[in-house]
Amino acid sequence: MRRKSFGTMQCPVARSLERVGEWWSMLIIRDALAGMTRFDEFQSSLGIAPNMLSRRLNALVTAGLLTRRRYQERPARHEYVLTDRGRDFRPVLLALQTWGNRHFAPEGASVVLVDAGTGLPADPVLVDRVTGKLITEATHRNAAGPAAGRRVRQRLAPSATAKSKPRRRARADAAGPRR
Amino acid sequence: MRRKSFGTMQCPVARSLERVGEWWSMLIIRDALAGMTRFDEFQSSLGIAPNMLSRRLNALVTAGLLTRRRYQERPARHEYVLTDRGRDFRPVLLALQTWGNRHFAPEGASVVLVDAGTGLPADPVLVDRVTGKLITEATHRNAAGPAAGRRVRQRLAPSATAKSKPRRRARADAAGPRR
Repeated sequence: MRRKSFGTMQCPVARSLERVGEWWSMLIIRDALAGMTRFDEFQSSLGIAPNMLSRRLNALVTAGLLTRRRYQERPARHEYVLTDRGRDFRPVLLALQTWGNRHFAPEGASVVLVDAGTGLPADPVLVDRVTGKLITEATHRNAAGPAAGRRVRQRLAPSATAKSKPRRRARADAAGPRR
Repeated sequence: MRRKSFGTMQCPVARSLERVGEWWSMLIIRDALAGMTRFDEFQSSLGIAPNMLSRRLNALVTAGLLTRRRYQERPARHEYVLTDRGRDFRPVLLALQTWGNRHFAPEGASVVLVDAGTGLPADPVLVDRVTGKLITEATHRNAAGPAAGRRVRQRLAPSATAKSKPRRRARADAAGPRR
């Protein structure tokens, strides 16, 4: 199934997902960050079909998260090594992990981030490096950046939602019931 | 296509992706965090097919990220409102956005997180709330939590990669060339 590409969208979340949003991709990066490099390692960790793993690894190489490196000549064997861009994905996975532990681990956490020095559990939160402030919905909002086009500017206009609600409701009424 | 479920895996990243890892799901949550609640709003923002949007919204309701709320009686109309669990997903999206801005916005950022008070751009980083330390590969590592099973413990054993490399290589050699 060829799915709609997010690559032409301006939004940085969409552009990220275009590279890592396929089923399996983020788990492959997780395993690479845990030190795996070989096809067989990924396969046995994930229980993924070889043709699927092959496609996902190639896509991650194309996206610049992994590089393919020959480690043996005869027979030729390759391993997959994280690039700086791939390693830089770690905060996303840690945020996902933190959210998963909080909401989908009723029996308790299976994986916890710990301080490597003390071994004590860490509590990862997003902070503004500039001001040191904790990032919450009250303290930080998204705004159009210098390269924003019309669509992004509309979506992020300070009162976009408040302004557009009545218009949208009117249009939905005119079109009749839909959902 | 029915894809393999991650829901039975213990890893919190896998469990999270089981709920939000389908194509479109995270962009729907992004739009919900930007204030959208109506089917038509999501559809016109995303350009997604109605049946697909319907499926994704239902899955997010089932996963507890959205609640479906009737806002009009005749004809019946519903809106989709973020739950606390859904709102708590914001740090993941902000981490994805930060990574996307850094790596996939050659023309400059289209969306930037700003301090709501000052309007100045923020630089979101993960910090350990307990110690205040910046979270890096050098300072923080994953460890098995109290509920970890055998597989997770093996994957996270301090020297798992170093120890298992020779074994894995030997097995791959025996099986002949593969990749």
